[in-house]
Amino acid sequence: MTPESKIKVGVLGATGTVGQRFIALLAEHPYFVLHALGASSRSAGKQYPQAVLWKQTSPIPASVRDMVVNECKPEFFKECSVVFSGLDAEVAGDIEAAFRSAELVVFSNAKNFRRDPTVPLIVPLVNSSHFAMVPQQRTLHNPPLKCGFILTNANCSTTGVVVPLAALEKAFGPLESCIITTMQAISGAGYPGVPSLDIIDNIVPYISGEEEKMEWETLKILGGITENDNAEKCFDMHSRHPLRISASCNRVPVVEGHTECVSVRFARRPPPSPQQVREALAAYTSDAYALGCPSAPRHTIFVHEEPDRPQPRLDRDYQKGAGVSVGRIRQCKVLDIKFTVLANNVAIGAATSSILNAELAVIKGYVS
Amino acid sequence: MTPESKIKVGVLGATGTVGQRFIALLAEHPYFVLHALGASSRSAGKQYPQAVLWKQTSPIPASVRDMVVNECKPEFFKECSVVFSGLDAEVAGDIEAAFRSAELVVFSNAKNFRRDPTVPLIVPLVNSSHFAMVPQQRTLHNPPLKCGFILTNANCSTTGVVVPLAALEKAFGPLESCIITTMQAISGAGYPGVPSLDIIDNIVPYISGEEEKMEWETLKILGGITENDNAEKCFDMHSRHPLRISASCNRVPVVEGHTECVSVRFARRPPPSPQQVREALAAYTSDAYALGCPSAPRHTIFVHEEPDRPQPRLDRDYQKGAGVSVGRIRQCKVLDIKFTVLANNVAIGAATSSILNAELAVIKGYVS
Amino acid sequence: MTPESKIKVGVLGATGTVGQRFIALLAEHPYFVLHALGASSRSAGKQYPQAVLWKQTSPIPASVRDMVVNECKPEFFKECSVVFSGLDAEVAGDIEAAFRSAELVVFSNAKNFRRDPTVPLIVPLVNSSHFAMVPQQRTLHNPPLKCGFILTNANCSTTGVVVPLAALEKAFGPLESCIITTMQAISGAGYPGVPSLDIIDNIVPYISGEEEKMEWETLKILGGITENDNAEKCFDMHSRHPLRISASCNRVPVVEGHTECVSVRFARRPPPSPQQVREALAAYTSDAYALGCPSAPRHTIFVHEEPDRPQPRLDRDYQKGAGVSVGRIRQCKVLDIKFTVLANNVAIGAATSSILNAELAVIKGYVS
Amino acid sequence: MTPESKIKVGVLGATGTVGQRFIALLAEHPYFVLHALGASSRSAGKQYPQAVLWKQTSPIPASVRDMVVNECKPEFFKECSVVFSGLDAEVAGDIEAAFRSAELVVFSNAKNFRRDPTVPLIVPLVNSSHFAMVPQQRTLHNPPLKCGFILTNANCSTTGVVVPLAALEKAFGPLESCIITTMQAISGAGYPGVPSLDIIDNIVPYISGEEEKMEWETLKILGGITENDNAEKCFDMHSRHPLRISASCNRVPVVEGHTECVSVRFARRPPPSPQQVREALAAYTSDAYALGCPSAPRHTIFVHEEPDRPQPRLDRDYQKGAGVSVGRIRQCKVLDIKFTVLANNVAIGAATSSILNAELAVIKGYVS
Repeated sequence: MTPESKIKVGVLGATGTVGQRFIALLAEHPYFVLHALGASSRSAGKQYPQAVLWKQTSPIPASVRDMVVNECKPEFFKECSVVFSGLDAEVAGDIEAAFRSAELVVFSNAKNFRRDPTVPLIVPLVNSSHFAMVPQQRTLHNPPLKCGFILTNANCSTTGVVVPLAALEKAFGPLESCIITTMQAISGAGYPGVPSLDIIDNIVPYISGEEEKMEWETLKILGGITENDNAEKCFDMHSRHPLRISASCNRVPVVEGHTECVSVRFARRPPPSPQQVREALAAYTSDAYALGCPSAPRHTIFVHEEPDRPQPRLDRDYQKGAGVSVGRIRQCKVLDIKFTVLANNVAIGAATSSILNAELAVIKGYVS
Repeated sequence: MTPESKIKVGVLGATGTVGQRFIALLAEHPYFVLHALGASSRSAGKQYPQAVLWKQTSPIPASVRDMVVNECKPEFFKECSVVFSGLDAEVAGDIEAAFRSAELVVFSNAKNFRRDPTVPLIVPLVNSSHFAMVPQQRTLHNPPLKCGFILTNANCSTTGVVVPLAALEKAFGPLESCIITTMQAISGAGYPGVPSLDIIDNIVPYISGEEEKMEWETLKILGGITENDNAEKCFDMHSRHPLRISASCNRVPVVEGHTECVSVRFARRPPPSPQQVREALAAYTSDAYALGCPSAPRHTIFVHEEPDRPQPRLDRDYQKGAGVSVGRIRQCKVLDIKFTVLANNVAIGAATSSILNAELAVIKGYVS
Repeated sequence: MTPESKIKVGVLGATGTVGQRFIALLAEHPYFVLHALGASSRSAGKQYPQAVLWKQTSPIPASVRDMVVNECKPEFFKECSVVFSGLDAEVAGDIEAAFRSAELVVFSNAKNFRRDPTVPLIVPLVNSSHFAMVPQQRTLHNPPLKCGFILTNANCSTTGVVVPLAALEKAFGPLESCIITTMQAISGAGYPGVPSLDIIDNIVPYISGEEEKMEWETLKILGGITENDNAEKCFDMHSRHPLRISASCNRVPVVEGHTECVSVRFARRPPPSPQQVREALAAYTSDAYALGCPSAPRHTIFVHEEPDRPQPRLDRDYQKGAGVSVGRIRQCKVLDIKFTVLANNVAIGAATSSILNAELAVIKGYVS
Repeated sequence: MTPESKIKVGVLGATGTVGQRFIALLAEHPYFVLHALGASSRSAGKQYPQAVLWKQTSPIPASVRDMVVNECKPEFFKECSVVFSGLDAEVAGDIEAAFRSAELVVFSNAKNFRRDPTVPLIVPLVNSSHFAMVPQQRTLHNPPLKCGFILTNANCSTTGVVVPLAALEKAFGPLESCIITTMQAISGAGYPGVPSLDIIDNIVPYISGEEEKMEWETLKILGGITENDNAEKCFDMHSRHPLRISASCNRVPVVEGHTECVSVRFARRPPPSPQQVREALAAYTSDAYALGCPSAPRHTIFVHEEPDRPQPRLDRDYQKGAGVSVGRIRQCKVLDIKFTVLANNVAIGAATSSILNAELAVIKGYVS
C-alpha cells in the first residue's frame, strides 16, 4: 500500500548532520514531501541556506532553498503528519515528547527514548514486528493519542551488527554470546565532532557511552514482545535465551562507514559451518524489502567472498548505503564463527533507517 | 655483564625498512658497533646513502655514510660476531642459515625460522628462558656449531599482545582463551607496502597470514620447554593448559603503532578483578630489564588510567617504543577481562626486540 | 547529431585504474557500447572479473562480467570503431599506433602522443577546434588513413587549470603569465601508485615530469592552429602572445580531486576586476555542452562564493566530476588575479575527458 | 653571556596547545626555570595534570606535575621576570599588557601586539636587530618601565617563509615580489581546531586572516628601523624597496609542519642562479646561533638536494624543529627563482621562537 497523495513531513534538527541527510533523502521521496524545517532559535527565521553549514557532497536540494527554518515547536508543523528528528540528545527528549503530544508521528535518531518501555527501537531490516507496541504507547498518554507516537532507530554501531545477528538467529536459533570490536567513522560523531588532531594518524580506543548502547540495544532489538497477566506488552530483552554481548568501540580515521569484527557463539550444538552462515546471511530478506518499502535494499546483507572485503571506502555506498556488508566469514577458535560487518553509519545507521521506519509505518497503517 | 670492547655486528637487508631501523638504533649502542652492511646484489658495491631510500625521521648516521654495502654472504661479515637480519621472507631462509653455518649469531625478524623446533622465538620482554634451546640447535648442526645460532623475534602484532598475556599468566595462572582484534599500522607492511589508495579513508579487514601467525606464535612464546625421554628439549606450545586464541587482523590508516583489543578468559575461577589485572600489569617486569639490558624499558607495561588511552600517535614513542601500553582494563561480559594494547610495531615489534634479544644473548653469555 | 545505432568500442588497459573508470562510464552510454577489452598478456584469456583488481565504488557492470580480456592487438578489436586507451606510457606508444594503423580511432590518456605535431591534445571543455588537425594526421600515414587517428586528452593537472584559463582568455584576451601550485590527489598516480608511508600525514612536494607537462601542454591547448606556406597546419603554442607558465606540483593525502592555486597576469591593462572574472568564469560554456555532448556538464565552471570552497571531498563529485570548480577569486598583489581550482582528476581529468572527446568526434563526424 | 642563576619564568595559557609546548621545552632549559602557570579561571586552583588535556607525545614533565594553575594575573607571577604567552587572541591583549605594566617581560605568540608600532615582531632566526625598539616601548609607558616590555613572534606560516627570504636579501639585495602558496598543518589551528570531517581526505583552501598576516608581517620583519626628526624609531615596513607579497593559504591533512611553495623576483638584474641561491641559503647563519642561544639550530636553513624533499613527516623534527628546510630550488618561468619551504609550525613556528627570543633577550641584556 502506498499513500495516495504525498504525506507532509518535517525535519527537526534540520541544520545538523543527520538533519542534512534527511533533507537530501527526502528531496525526491515517493511517499513524503518535505514541508517544514525545525532547528534552534539561533537558526529560526533564516532561509535554510543561510542557516546551515551544508556538508553534503550533493548541493542543497532546490525544494528547500527557499524554506525558512522554524523553531522546533509543534505549532510550526501543524500541516505535517510526521517529523524526522535529528536532534541532539540534550534537547531531543522534551521536543520529541511535545510533538507526540501534538499527535505527530516522530521518527527519532536520538537516544532519549530508546530505553523507554513503550517506545519501539526498530532497525527496519530486523524487527518491524515491534510496531506492535505503538497502540500501548498511545494509550498511556492522557488522553490517549489517536495518531502520535515516537519510534526510534538504533545507534549507528548497533545497527550494523544487529542485522547479521538477526539473520543468524532466524536461521540457526538463539545466539549465546557475541564479542564485537568496532572501528567507527568520524561522521558518527556529527559536526564538528572529532577534532582532527585526535584522529589523523591515530586511533581513539573509546567512544563515550557507545559500548553500553550496543550491549543494551541489541537485546531490545533481537528480543521479542511478551504480554503479562494484565495483557500489557513488554519488550523481553531476549530474556528467554540470555545473550551476553561484549563490545569494544574505537574511532578510526575513516570518513564514513563503521567496520565491526564480530565473533558469535550459538546455543545450538554443533554450530553451523561458515558456509551455512554465508548462505543464511545472503538469503536473509528484511520485512522492509518484502513489504515493498521504496528505500529498502534488495540485498539486506551483501556477502563478500574476497578475503579483504568489506572495506568502508569501496563498499559503503553500495545500494546507497541502505544494506549491510558482511565478509570474512570463518571459524572462531574461541566462540563459533567470526566475520566482519560494514554498515554506512550515516545511511542505514541513521537517516535511512528512520525513513525506512516511516515507510514501514505507512505500509502498516500507522501513519495516515 | 657488559662486553669489554664493543662487538662488531652486521645488518642484513640494510636498505629495507627494518634494516634502516637497525642502523638508526645501532648508531650509538653501548655493546655493539656496526661494521658491515648487507643487501641485494642491486645495492652491493654502492655507498650506503646511494643504495638506500632512507625513510627515517632522523638523518643517516654519520658512521654509515661512508660504508659500502655488500651482498649478504658470510665472507663479507668475517669480522662480525652477530648479524641482525631485516631480510624479506623470500630470501631470509637460505641466507640466515648460511650465516649460522659460518658461526655467526643471527637475530632475525623474518618468519622463516619461527616455527623451527630448535629456534627460539623470543619476545625479550617475555620469554628469555627460551635461550635454553640454543645449545641443542647448535648440536644439530654437522659439525656442531661453537658460536652460531639463529634466534627470531615475533611478528609485530604478536609482540604487542603477548606481553600483557605473559604478565597475566605470571600473576593469575594459565589463560584459557583469548580473542584479539587488531588495528595495525601501515609501517608493519614495509615499503612500499600498502598502496595509499587502499588505506586513506579506509580499513582493510585482512592481512595475509597475520592471524595464523598470531594464533601460533603466541602459543610458542607463552609455552615452556619440556624434555623427552632422550633428554631432547622441545617447545611445549602451552600444551599443559590448552589456550585457544582467535585473532582478527585489520590494517588502518595509522603510520606507526599497532592497537589491539583483547578479551581473555582465565582458567582460575573466579577470575581476577579489573583492578587486580591493572596492578599485575603495572607490576610486571621483564627479564630484559631485570638483567640490565640497556635498551629495556623501565615500564615493561605502562598502564593508562584515562579512558581514551593508549592512542598510537600519542603513546607509541614513550620509552622510544620499547615498552607496551595497556589501557581500558575492564570486565568482559563474554570472557572475563578486556583491555586495549598499543605496541610500536617498528620498535618493540621489530628492530628493538632483535636488539634486546642480542643484549640478552650477550648478558647470558651466548655471544662472545 | 547522435548515432543511429550504438558504436562498438573497446577499452585498452582495461584492468588499470583509468580502464576501470572507462568501463564504469561506458556501461550505460547513449552513443557507445562496450564490445572488447584489452590488457596485458597476463590478463588475456581471463574473464574480466578474474583479471581485474576492481577498485571502483560501484560494482563491476553486469555487461562486462562475462567478457573475456584479450591482448591489446587490433585483430581482437575488428568490430570496434573506437578504442579508449588507459594504457601506461611504457606500452601505449606502439599499441596505440598499431590501432590507428588498423583504422581505429584511439582516444588516449597516455602522454606518448601529446607532443606529436599532428595529434590534437584536446580538453573537451576548451579546444574542440583542434579536431581540425585530424585530416592532416591521417594523410601523413602511408597509405593515408580513412578512419583511424589518435587523439589525446591532457594530463589531469593541466586539465583543471586550462579550463578557467581558456575562459579568461576568451573574455579578456591573452594571458601573459601564470603561476600555479597544485595539491594533487593520490588517485592521479594510478594503482598501486603512491605508497601510504609516503603520504599519510605528509606532503610530497614533487611529481616526476608533472611540472613540465603542465607548462608545455597548456600552451598547446590554449594556442591555435596556423598554416604555413605549404598549407600545412601546425599548433602555434600560443606563440602570438607568449605566455609564461610556472608550475609547482605537490602530492597530498586526498583520494580524489586536484586542487590548484593559480595567479594570472593579463596582457590587457588595466586587468579585469575580481567580479568581472567571477562573471566571466560562470558564463563560460564549453563547445562540448553547446554541441550537445551527453557527458558534458551544464556548468563548465562552477563558481563558488563561499570563502572556503572548492574543497575536494565536497565538490569533486558535482556533475559527476565532469566540470571544474573555481573559488576564492580575488586580487593578487604580484600578478593580477588569483583563485583556486578544483578538478576531479579521474573524471574530467582522465576518463570523462576521453569520452567527451569521443562524443565530440561523433557529433563532428570524425567517427562513423 | 648566560645567566648566573636560572631565571624564573611563567607560562600564560598553560593548558593550551602552545602552552603545553612551552612547558615541554622549559622542562630542562639552561637559562629558565618554570615557576608559575596561568590559565583561565576554569582551570585556576587545579593541579596542572587535572587542568590540562595533555596532547604532547612526551609525558607531562615531573617538574609541573604538582604545580597549581593560577589565573593570568601578575600578582600570581611576582617572582617571575619573564612570561611566555600562549594565550588566545580573544584575551591576550589585556592580559599581556597587564603583565608588561607589572614589569614583566612578555614573549607572546598571539597576534594582538604584532602590529603595534613599538612592539618588535621578531623571528629569532631573522631580525634580532629589532630588539632596538624595546627602550622606546618602555618609555611610552607612564611612568616609563624599567624591565617590562612585550615582544611577539610571527604567525607560524610567516616564520617559515621569512627565514629564506631574509637569507636571500642578505646575499642578493632586496626582493621585489614574492608569491607563496601554503599547505598548513592542522596543529596550526590549536585544539580542538579543525574538525576531522573538514580535513580527512580533503583540503580547505582558506584560513581566516592568514593571508593578510603573511603579507603584512613579512614586511615588518624584513624591514628595518628608521628614525624620524624627533629621534623616534619606527619600523619601516621594507619601504625603501617596496616588496609585493601575495599569499594563498590552505589547510591540509598533515599533523605538523607547514609546507610552502615560494616564487621570488629580485630587484637585482640579472638575478642569482639556482645554485647561487642554494649556496646562499645553506650559508645563512642566524644571529641567534652566532650569539650562542642554546635553542638555536646549527643549520638555520637545511638545503635538501633530493628532488622530493622537504617532506613534513620526515623533516619536521630535524634539529627539534628549530630550523627551516628548503628544497627544490629552481628557476621560475614567471618570477626568478622558486623553491619549497618546510617549517615546524609548533616549534620554530610558535613556542621555540618565543624561547629563542627570550634567550636573545637574556644575551642582549634585556632581561635581568
